[in-house]
Amino acid sequence: MMIQFDDTICAPATTPGTGAISIVRISGPDTFRVLDSVVEFRAGSASESEGYRLKFGVIPGVDEVLVSIFRAPNSYTGEDSAEISCHASAYIVEQILRLLVASGVRLAGPGEFTRRAFVNGKMDLAQAEAVADVITASSEAAHRVALNQLRGKYSSELRALRDHLLELASLLELELDFSEEDVEFAGRGKLRSLLELSSEHIRRLTESFKLGNAIKKGVPVAIVGAVNSGKSTLLNALLGEERAIVSDVPGTTRDTVEEMLNIDGVAFRFIDTAGLRDASDYVEKIGIERSLRSMESADVVLAVLDGDASPSEAADTLRSISCRLSLSQTLITLRNKADAVPDGPSGFPSCELEISAKTGFGLDALKSRLSALYKTGAMDEDSVLVTNLRHYEALTLALADLDSVRTGLDSGIPTDLLAEDLRSAIRHLGTIFGEVTPDELLGSIFGRFCIGK
Amino acid sequence: MMIQFDDTICAPATTPGTGAISIVRISGPDTFRVLDSVVEFRAGSASESEGYRLKFGVIPGVDEVLVSIFRAPNSYTGEDSAEISCHASAYIVEQILRLLVASGVRLAGPGEFTRRAFVNGKMDLAQAEAVADVITASSEAAHRVALNQLRGKYSSELRALRDHLLELASLLELELDFSEEDVEFAGRGKLRSLLELSSEHIRRLTESFKLGNAIKKGVPVAIVGAVNSGKSTLLNALLGEERAIVSDVPGTTRDTVEEMLNIDGVAFRFIDTAGLRDASDYVEKIGIERSLRSMESADVVLAVLDGDASPSEAADTLRSISCRLSLSQTLITLRNKADAVPDGPSGFPSCELEISAKTGFGLDALKSRLSALYKTGAMDEDSVLVTNLRHYEALTLALADLDSVRTGLDSGIPTDLLAEDLRSAIRHLGTIFGEVTPDELLGSIFGRFCIGK
Repeated sequence: MMIQFDDTICAPATTPGTGAISIVRISGPDTFRVLDSVVEFRAGSASESEGYRLKFGVIPGVDEVLVSIFRAPNSYTGEDSAEISCHASAYIVEQILRLLVASGVRLAGPGEFTRRAFVNGKMDLAQAEAVADVITASSEAAHRVALNQLRGKYSSELRALRDHLLELASLLELELDFSEEDVEFAGRGKLRSLLELSSEHIRRLTESFKLGNAIKKGVPVAIVGAVNSGKSTLLNALLGEERAIVSDVPGTTRDTVEEMLNIDGVAFRFIDTAGLRDASDYVEKIGIERSLRSMESADVVLAVLDGDASPSEAADTLRSISCRLSLSQTLITLRNKADAVPDGPSGFPSCELEISAKTGFGLDALKSRLSALYKTGAMDEDSVLVTNLRHYEALTLALADLDSVRTGLDSGIPTDLLAEDLRSAIRHLGTIFGEVTPDELLGSIFGRFCIGK
Repeated sequence: MMIQFDDTICAPATTPGTGAISIVRISGPDTFRVLDSVVEFRAGSASESEGYRLKFGVIPGVDEVLVSIFRAPNSYTGEDSAEISCHASAYIVEQILRLLVASGVRLAGPGEFTRRAFVNGKMDLAQAEAVADVITASSEAAHRVALNQLRGKYSSELRALRDHLLELASLLELELDFSEEDVEFAGRGKLRSLLELSSEHIRRLTESFKLGNAIKKGVPVAIVGAVNSGKSTLLNALLGEERAIVSDVPGTTRDTVEEMLNIDGVAFRFIDTAGLRDASDYVEKIGIERSLRSMESADVVLAVLDGDASPSEAADTLRSISCRLSLSQTLITLRNKADAVPDGPSGFPSCELEISAKTGFGLDALKSRLSALYKTGAMDEDSVLVTNLRHYEALTLALADLDSVRTGLDSGIPTDLLAEDLRSAIRHLGTIFGEVTPDELLGSIFGRFCIGK
């Protein structure tokens, strides 16, 4: 499906900062001709060079450069392309881009190199989307998931799934052909079991989205509890020295009440909430309402019970928290100030972990508990997780189509209508790796990339 | 002078930001062995690869990478070295550095790659210093001067100068050898003229420092004048839309009263000053004193005379400005508000340019005038400018040595003492390109570089 683009594009591939090297990328049919006109190579020409070679040259008045030569189709984009490596100066990069543009090269839009790689069949759409995820991944888990997707593991699992559906479709076609010869019943048994298997597979994938998305964006953990139970102290103690690890990753957005923490390679997004109590104050009521809502959208809820509080107060707090939780949320109960009140008064609600936010006692156990939640089967090296909302939606639509097929089988709907639903499911799966992709979808996907990628 | 370092160093060569590509640099004897243990190359090994080749490979669990192979001595550092090009993610760069360090590679300090290039004879010290200047240059002129220095033009002019001094020294030695045979007078004539030529050459170079430094750091232009003569309006009008051009260059420091403006490739640093008047207020007096001082340290002074003012007031202002100026400063007199008062009252001091800061009238002429000041002979393509304070000091010391030689010649000081002074001058010149360079000097020079360079 190689399509020859007729224009040549260029863009800086690094952000000129305080580094040592900047790179300008160029791709398209004119790449080598333009390079030969702009760069005085020490030996030979770009046009005559083999691929995967480095050539030293001078751009007069601008800089000494090293040019990496890639020949179609063995390049990132699949086209003739090159990377010009120069001194890391905004001025030099600007001059090189000016010279390239003066030679008829066009400045690339966001993600245009990767878009060409996709259109030229160098990667499928899911892999192309993974490029952006790999760049922004800031935890080990998020990075591993993105890398698996980039390297095609994810796509090949989805392709295998689609092959099953194609097999299903061919069984249905067989039925259509022999519909007058009463082979129906034998075929339907196999059809039904294949259908179950595929539906189950897709369901597993859609269910992995919650985990995948949490890993990609950070697992939301709400810290809730009564006023003065030590929630903020706990947050600070958890962050402690590790805070810097997160903060040196660019792009980590911070809210006043949210802090990211990497635990064993998974990013957790801790949300400190207002203390719960029977508030008469209107403004405080709003704060508590907000706490409860952020608690409801968290994947994990840390219920901090004040070890100093009376057993009945603690029980009330715990009740008001747990009655708000859904089944999919993980509740971890913590008895704080466990150092001050070692055994706890009788009648105090039993807690999963005893901690002291102040002294740090029990925090390692808490971190291990959190980390274990995201180290289960789904996080095996080989596991495939859905992290992309677009894919999740496509899978959900495919699942609905398969449900229609199953219901249709049960209620004796004509085979050709069933086949139509099945084809729709196959189409939905196909959009994930970009088999049929409207232009505006491509525009919106690659428009989110940075320029130069 | 190739020295084999026995350790291998690594560092990121790009700042991980929003770009597409990040680069990790590695240099030293273990480069290829370490690469082969860290990267799974698709074909062949780094150890067996020729230089100037690109190799595709995978760092398991981390990224797909492209590795540029450079074999000693044909590399930046002169050693075996490589550049690992990966996705622009802080996480990935960190993982690659971790793997390299685990294989015994050391994280490089600031400028350590360039320092190795210098020690290995790939560039002299002046060229090495130019690397940092090339990276930070933000105007065309500053960039051109730095590039000339990087490419060795500057060093070769200084080497030619030193060769003259060596010739002088050999003439002196000749005199020493034949001192008993009365060849003194013939030799001394040639000696004297060579001495004059060399002194003149060094003097020209030291004088170029003012221009070179102004170009490198921006030419300081003070805007002075009476209160309400339109100085700030002039500054704003000059900056106008061009302001953004300067502000997108990283590292441009700004003071409240200083603004950079690029005019025809030269950076001008405009300093707005407090209005001059006979102030009784103590605080205002201090402000005016400060204006006068910043005027005294400027290379160019724009005297803004209020076209509305009476001829005698304007003449007073002009007198108070010009009496403070030194011969090396350029004074440009401007009659502002020239649109409101077209011809100017008779008796008004004659001004070089008529402008209107408010309407923009005459500003292009002012810019041309400023630009012309720095487009003279000294700024030819081929001209060599001293931009580095260390070099300026070395040249000044060498010049003093030559003066001693000349004085000594006149006063009949023994030839061997003259030879000593001459050798001192030669040594001072040698420090510029690093022939004799104490370790702490190298430390201070390369310590100012960024890591990865």
